[in-house]
Amino acid sequence: MPQGKVTAVPDDGLTTRQRRRQAVLAVHTGPGKGKSTAAFGMALRAWSAGWPIGVFQFVKSQKWKVGEEAALKALGNAGGAPVTWHKMGEGWSWIQRAGTERDHAAEAAEGWAQIKRDLAAEAYRFYVLDEFTYPIKWGWVDVEDVIETLGGRPGTQHVVITGRDAHPDLVAAADLVTEMTKIKHPMDAGRKGQQGIEW
Amino acid sequence: MPQGKVTAVPDDGLTTRQRRRQAVLAVHTGPGKGKSTAAFGMALRAWSAGWPIGVFQFVKSQKWKVGEEAALKALGNAGGAPVTWHKMGEGWSWIQRAGTERDHAAEAAEGWAQIKRDLAAEAYRFYVLDEFTYPIKWGWVDVEDVIETLGGRPGTQHVVITGRDAHPDLVAAADLVTEMTKIKHPMDAGRKGQQGIEW
Repeated sequence: MPQGKVTAVPDDGLTTRQRRRQAVLAVHTGPGKGKSTAAFGMALRAWSAGWPIGVFQFVKSQKWKVGEEAALKALGNAGGAPVTWHKMGEGWSWIQRAGTERDHAAEAAEGWAQIKRDLAAEAYRFYVLDEFTYPIKWGWVDVEDVIETLGGRPGTQHVVITGRDAHPDLVAAADLVTEMTKIKHPMDAGRKGQQGIEW
Repeated sequence: MPQGKVTAVPDDGLTTRQRRRQAVLAVHTGPGKGKSTAAFGMALRAWSAGWPIGVFQFVKSQKWKVGEEAALKALGNAGGAPVTWHKMGEGWSWIQRAGTERDHAAEAAEGWAQIKRDLAAEAYRFYVLDEFTYPIKWGWVDVEDVIETLGGRPGTQHVVITGRDAHPDLVAAADLVTEMTKIKHPMDAGRKGQQGIEW
């Protein structure tokens, strides 16, 4: 349910209906769990709304997010909105490579270049840029380019960016920013990641 | 990806493998967005793991979580683990009522009684008790009963409880607690809830 009331009506010349249809840039940051998980939860709503979904995973991990990927792909195949899933580190799906050598900075830049093309083409209506805060933080992707591109994106394309340490300029540019804070984690008690919970 | 390292090996006589399969009690609390959304995102992993999922929505809302419900039910129908969705306020699905009068406290207590039966029967392997912090806060459900029941639940049944103002005893009893903090929300800028984003 909505978690707040509108306290001011903006002087932007838009109707409430128009404002309801504005594109949202959301950022999930902070050290706690749930940043990506909540983004994939939002994708459930997007799918239900019939919106094409594009997921871009920016940080290679041992286990990726195989559960979410399998479930969202199953939804994409169940009819309704298609779900497209791209992974850096296994090679972005639009790039065919001969060799196996990897340059993470170059791959991140390629990923961002593809997102820019997709935004310009309005390829999706809901984007998850998973762990995209890190290539920004590491200087592989220019934050000003990100903000300018997102600020000028055409149509109604919602974008959710996840990851710790979101750049302050990105936070300033976002419409919706949530920080996930760890209060308690099973690892504190010596428990490792668990199937179905962590992946 | 796992967001921490095990700093201590508990003296519980369990192997890592056994610990990986322990049941988890997670609480998503705090004033920010994403508490329920992250719980439904976790349900994607549970579905992918083949686990029967039970969702209990405890607070009647105008829009419910129709997007998540439609998507998770579509997954349940797509094969694999079944998804069962119960809503208070429309009348829990296991209760057939003649009249339309409602007693929210009694309904919440009925919901909790059903969850106790389901836990005893190991009806599901992943439970979302959505906005369950509120009936506890309002005294409709006894927190000590909740903690005792969850502490003694048989088998490997994972439970995620969402809602603001989680009771301190519930936080103490949980394995994983994340607080969602609002940094910025579109409503602050006079924007109302948006289709596909808020519901």
